[in-house]
Amino acid sequence: MRTSVWRRATFNAAHRLYNPAWDDETNDRIFGLCNNPNYHGHNYILFVKVTGEIDPETGYVMDLKILNDLIKEQVIEPFDHNNLNLDVPEFKYLNPTAENIAKVIWEKLRHKLDKKYDVQIRLYETENNFVEYPA
Amino acid sequence: MRTSVWRRATFNAAHRLYNPAWDDETNDRIFGLCNNPNYHGHNYILFVKVTGEIDPETGYVMDLKILNDLIKEQVIEPFDHNNLNLDVPEFKYLNPTAENIAKVIWEKLRHKLDKKYDVQIRLYETENNFVEYPA
Amino acid sequence: MRTSVWRRATFNAAHRLYNPAWDDETNDRIFGLCNNPNYHGHNYILFVKVTGEIDPETGYVMDLKILNDLIKEQVIEPFDHNNLNLDVPEFKYLNPTAENIAKVIWEKLRHKLDKKYDVQIRLYETENNFVEYPA
Amino acid sequence: MRTSVWRRATFNAAHRLYNPAWDDETNDRIFGLCNNPNYHGHNYILFVKVTGEIDPETGYVMDLKILNDLIKEQVIEPFDHNNLNLDVPEFKYLNPTAENIAKVIWEKLRHKLDKKYDVQIRLYETENNFVEYPA
Amino acid sequence: MRTSVWRRATFNAAHRLYNPAWDDETNDRIFGLCNNPNYHGHNYILFVKVTGEIDPETGYVMDLKILNDLIKEQVIEPFDHNNLNLDVPEFKYLNPTAENIAKVIWEKLRHKLDKKYDVQIRLYETENNFVEYPA
Amino acid sequence: MRTSVWRRATFNAAHRLYNPAWDDETNDRIFGLCNNPNYHGHNYILFVKVTGEIDPETGYVMDLKILNDLIKEQVIEPFDHNNLNLDVPEFKYLNPTAENIAKVIWEKLRHKLDKKYDVQIRLYETENNFVEYPA
Repeated sequence: MRTSVWRRATFNAAHRLYNPAWDDETNDRIFGLCNNPNYHGHNYILFVKVTGEIDPETGYVMDLKILNDLIKEQVIEPFDHNNLNLDVPEFKYLNPTAENIAKVIWEKLRHKLDKKYDVQIRLYETENNFVEYPA
Repeated sequence: MRTSVWRRATFNAAHRLYNPAWDDETNDRIFGLCNNPNYHGHNYILFVKVTGEIDPETGYVMDLKILNDLIKEQVIEPFDHNNLNLDVPEFKYLNPTAENIAKVIWEKLRHKLDKKYDVQIRLYETENNFVEYPA
Repeated sequence: MRTSVWRRATFNAAHRLYNPAWDDETNDRIFGLCNNPNYHGHNYILFVKVTGEIDPETGYVMDLKILNDLIKEQVIEPFDHNNLNLDVPEFKYLNPTAENIAKVIWEKLRHKLDKKYDVQIRLYETENNFVEYPA
Repeated sequence: MRTSVWRRATFNAAHRLYNPAWDDETNDRIFGLCNNPNYHGHNYILFVKVTGEIDPETGYVMDLKILNDLIKEQVIEPFDHNNLNLDVPEFKYLNPTAENIAKVIWEKLRHKLDKKYDVQIRLYETENNFVEYPA
Repeated sequence: MRTSVWRRATFNAAHRLYNPAWDDETNDRIFGLCNNPNYHGHNYILFVKVTGEIDPETGYVMDLKILNDLIKEQVIEPFDHNNLNLDVPEFKYLNPTAENIAKVIWEKLRHKLDKKYDVQIRLYETENNFVEYPA
Repeated sequence: MRTSVWRRATFNAAHRLYNPAWDDETNDRIFGLCNNPNYHGHNYILFVKVTGEIDPETGYVMDLKILNDLIKEQVIEPFDHNNLNLDVPEFKYLNPTAENIAKVIWEKLRHKLDKKYDVQIRLYETENNFVEYPA
């Protein structure tokens, strides 16, 4: 049977939700306060779940120090203390909803992790809202 | 691939666990302190998980403001600051265990949410006990 | 310099807020949903803070096992899975607000603890509300 | 003896730390990543502590519903989903550090609360950093 | 549809990670600080998830008091306030990584629980790391 | 008025409670499971509170980056992933109770921080027990 290991990390970022293809009224109606053009922000809490076999030599599914370094390099360095819309190229044309942020993080980490692992992202935007990708 | 979004809400309620088909001794043996006829209570923490596709126009699986309004209307208004056994019709003949409360909430919300979504309920009765319906 | 030690405990109880000297309309206006005559309930989280000197032989301000046993005997046994208004004599004529519950707990524990200690109660009624007695 | 009641609230905001009297190099040296001109953000968690006598008629130090409405009016409405530097007049010429935000909140609420109460603010910027004003 | 119930428990233990088949240098390279021969320790948080049908007579998937007693007997008594490497026979020849601890707990509880239930273990080693077995 | 800033840090360590001046029976009676000669361990959570004036140029009581570096140097490096009794010189002849650990940390940090500040330590040994020094 396979085992899952989860690693937590945090980043603090500004963002704004809007669709540039829509007029202001539609953006306000759909995104409400989240459409503030001056931005607002969050303390995002990220969990990365990696599923695989326990290596009988180490007792690890994978070395979480290595996973943590990868999360720092791929997510924390580029996202933390930044404006997701302005400073992170992936969101130049993609609305930085929690769903899309989780998907972008998954794509970045999936690409760097061995294919023998399954990878899932859980991202908390607030204590009341979080998302999982893939479901 | 599909994405899940979770929304948290809380309600504070009184309840009592017992089976009216049993005598007092059996109820005490099975339900212990939870069978106090004067009731006890909990701060319930509810998570509603909705799984679907990310809408490319909004970046949302669904607007969590709409989900939150639905949770308020269907769960918080009728359950919060109430006695589940006496004030909530669904528990007139159904024992308000965490399992049954989660199932009732699922039925109420499933009925109101688009069929394209999967819905799951997680309900914390205490920090030590929680349930998920469906599994 | 003195040191404080804190011990946590939890109890789940039903209660109702009202003043029997007032008419129903006044009780509803002042206590709102908390005045439901069928009761509601909470997972109360209690912290007891004891301040004193560190005993050089044990390295303890006091043995927290002894404090914990005292909390169980004086608070958890009589309050947990009970209805504060109906089952706990101290609230027969005293409104079980968080402030009054904290004060009652303080009086019970202060009486049992050595005078060389200072004692303070912190009581969480919900994640959003808590009280401290004495201030 | 007096009693303290605490009420929690949350707001999500963008901000940037810098001193306009300094050159860019000094701002970068002192404020580091927090000086990003495109802003970053936080989920702020606010606790307001009010200390006073327990009213013998209500069992309350003060009605937390009234305190909560005041916090919403004075803090959540103007701060939530806003950019503290650009959207909140108090920070037009005041650096929005956690210390200064707490002090501004204290001044706004102190002014609106009866003089018989003592008021203290605790503000969490992240899970690792929080401030209290006054100490 | 089936329902899951989760029960939480905690234990505090010392451990050391190393592979006796490796030399010291390899152990240090792979396990780093966790290979300290004098041991370090953790507050482990355990969740046991049991999935089954809701019993129509009780409203329970299973009586969590019985599950809790089983967790105490099989996990807390033998693990709590012990050294996993020295005091717990299952880890005499098995490296006590979170993955292996979760697997050992699963084997002990699976053996004692009715076959009609599915059982899963979630074990937190720190707030940043946890594992699930089976995945 | 002065302001307090709090900084959180964590370390994972093994320890054993006993008094070498006592016989085994007395140690077992006083310290119970905590006297296991093979050690047990905890995830300690440390809060350092520094009280002072807000610097009008920075808006800081003190730069928390500097405080954090000091905590790392003075506490996390020497304590984390170590055995407090065997690896930390301060506990060679001092019982590593939470009270004594907090006092040792206070002495180390007080010595390194400017006299204009007041310093207090809060240390969580478990979710149920924590201490503050000085009170």
